[in-house]
Amino acid sequence: MKPPSLILTLTTDYGTADGYAGAVKGRILTIARGVTLVDLSHDIAPQNVLQGAWCLRRAAPRFPEGTIHMAVVDPGVGSWRSGLVIETEHYYFVGPDNGLLSLAAHDDGIRRTVEIQENPRHWQKSATFDGLTLYAPVAAHLASGMPLETIGTDAEDMVSLPEPQPTYTVGVIEGSVLFFDRFGNAITNISRDDLENRPIDRVFLQTGVEAKLCEHYAQLAGTGRLGALWNSDGRLELALYEQSLRERLGLEAGDPVRVILRRR
Amino acid sequence: MKPPSLILTLTTDYGTADGYAGAVKGRILTIARGVTLVDLSHDIAPQNVLQGAWCLRRAAPRFPEGTIHMAVVDPGVGSWRSGLVIETEHYYFVGPDNGLLSLAAHDDGIRRTVEIQENPRHWQKSATFDGLTLYAPVAAHLASGMPLETIGTDAEDMVSLPEPQPTYTVGVIEGSVLFFDRFGNAITNISRDDLENRPIDRVFLQTGVEAKLCEHYAQLAGTGRLGALWNSDGRLELALYEQSLRERLGLEAGDPVRVILRRR
Amino acid sequence: MKPPSLILTLTTDYGTADGYAGAVKGRILTIARGVTLVDLSHDIAPQNVLQGAWCLRRAAPRFPEGTIHMAVVDPGVGSWRSGLVIETEHYYFVGPDNGLLSLAAHDDGIRRTVEIQENPRHWQKSATFDGLTLYAPVAAHLASGMPLETIGTDAEDMVSLPEPQPTYTVGVIEGSVLFFDRFGNAITNISRDDLENRPIDRVFLQTGVEAKLCEHYAQLAGTGRLGALWNSDGRLELALYEQSLRERLGLEAGDPVRVILRRR
Repeated sequence: MKPPSLILTLTTDYGTADGYAGAVKGRILTIARGVTLVDLSHDIAPQNVLQGAWCLRRAAPRFPEGTIHMAVVDPGVGSWRSGLVIETEHYYFVGPDNGLLSLAAHDDGIRRTVEIQENPRHWQKSATFDGLTLYAPVAAHLASGMPLETIGTDAEDMVSLPEPQPTYTVGVIEGSVLFFDRFGNAITNISRDDLENRPIDRVFLQTGVEAKLCEHYAQLAGTGRLGALWNSDGRLELALYEQSLRERLGLEAGDPVRVILRRR
Repeated sequence: MKPPSLILTLTTDYGTADGYAGAVKGRILTIARGVTLVDLSHDIAPQNVLQGAWCLRRAAPRFPEGTIHMAVVDPGVGSWRSGLVIETEHYYFVGPDNGLLSLAAHDDGIRRTVEIQENPRHWQKSATFDGLTLYAPVAAHLASGMPLETIGTDAEDMVSLPEPQPTYTVGVIEGSVLFFDRFGNAITNISRDDLENRPIDRVFLQTGVEAKLCEHYAQLAGTGRLGALWNSDGRLELALYEQSLRERLGLEAGDPVRVILRRR
Repeated sequence: MKPPSLILTLTTDYGTADGYAGAVKGRILTIARGVTLVDLSHDIAPQNVLQGAWCLRRAAPRFPEGTIHMAVVDPGVGSWRSGLVIETEHYYFVGPDNGLLSLAAHDDGIRRTVEIQENPRHWQKSATFDGLTLYAPVAAHLASGMPLETIGTDAEDMVSLPEPQPTYTVGVIEGSVLFFDRFGNAITNISRDDLENRPIDRVFLQTGVEAKLCEHYAQLAGTGRLGALWNSDGRLELALYEQSLRERLGLEAGDPVRVILRRR
């Protein structure tokens, strides 16, 4: 096997057909030839910062220590907003200061946040394509060993995406749907930790529909029922067997989900 | 050029925007840092095992000997069904025992089929995301040299996808459409071998529409006609020039295709 | 970091789910094991040579010198048309002679154009899948050091895509929409150079709608107005803030765009 090389991941809403994602790859490889590029996604829905942030939160923590995660989903490209490099316990994150990096960075533990400074020799802000002119060279120079002090100055704060928390009253957790994955399954903001070791008794949608508690999707086969299970992120997830819950039940992000706990 | 490194290919229905495919890549690179990851596809239609199996059948045999092909398209994730490692003449295949690996593995010649056993130190079955917790670490440890004996025990049998065969009566082959590719071309189950060296006289759809025999698509330009040709897999393929046959003629998988042979 | 290896980029309209793109990768890695494959796109719209050519034009010039760019978008696959290897100032381009390579190759400065010759030992033309049987082995052998003289003979000419030029009358530039990117922004054929250092006074669509001149998209936030700015390619681009101009205004490729220059 080849010796380990530094890994640099990419998460964007560029798609690939326009050549923007390809241009970013070329620019990075020109500056840091030996880096191993890994595509997380270029298919984030246009300007959907939340989807990009969740993609990064899911994938980033699985990578080897020292990996650089660059992400660009940026409706505000070209405006005054600054770019960030965030050093966390195990990784570096490079991208705009609009919350895109915040979920993954907070999860891993933020050590230092640096606001990228002007450096005309190496990078520029641009009107429409900061991924190419700003974030790609910053990430590549970081991969080549440029110290954070040369890249920018400590940031006073950063934009963080809000994370709606479930509310808790005696024996009842009121949560909500955060978003849907590719299969149309609904991921909620209810975590296993929220239960404080009490087992779930019943799970309801606002419509009164009750979900069948299950351990995996296949238990729903042939039942036609809505299921609720703990997913690989430790979150309560709602699903139909081999169908899109989103399409069939017309559920939307933000819709309430109620969990009734069993008495101890 | 760099020294050759072990190649590990990925075929899933995860899409990329949810971060699941990215998480799989991170997990593999954490265990087997020097492996070269190659994406075959993360765009298999959700839970379409047949499409995944054909993607793998097309692409797998083109890779260098020793390549590990990991694939996950699995409506039954989390159920009792076991995971497999299949050693063939030139490759290893890692994935669920639902037929996904069967076409490519049979084509290459199966040497040994191993059912993945529990190994809590290295991998776990999970309710929703076996790709991350089971198949990624198995594939990565295999890449790192873990012997098959440590991964599991010999499997008694495995699930194989049915392959509908054409029927043959005097001078007539009755086949059917297997599926459609991205261009809307119809791939049939009729192979060149089925002709036993007799030339084709005429090709008909069930609707009575006759296909024009041609050697390549460009011969159809300006004719507006349905064409039939031998594709790169040695199968009879039906196409319209620069149009989707599927959309224009409303053909579906399973629809009959009749080939009349010329008398010798 | 690992030592630099030769980079080979891929641009196709194959999608990934059918396995064709994967087969191409396998074939290349079998011949040139140490090459670093980089996907530019497999999502070019089926048979859209113009989109593929622009993807390549955007991405190719960002890559390190010596990179091999292979591209296949080819409605005429299987016909008599020849395949090309184009050596430019910094790169090699490999693909069909239908204009796909022409924009990027002309931009970089063409040194030599070679028509691929038959070489049954290494590659073949095929009826449906030249990417696998012809262009992949040519690109891989080129990466492995095969000289251009062995690959083919000097071509007399090549197909170039037309590039509609804006017309210029006193103080007025009449251009047009070339195409739309993933965000629905319209890229025009009007370049900064066309202004000859005179500032823009006003920008109009044929419908009479006037575009607001801006420096970046975020300046349009809350205005609901059509904006016009210089993009990263130095071209005039029209956009709506966080909306698809294409969908909202029903603009199409070829639609006129008029720029009125300020008097000096």
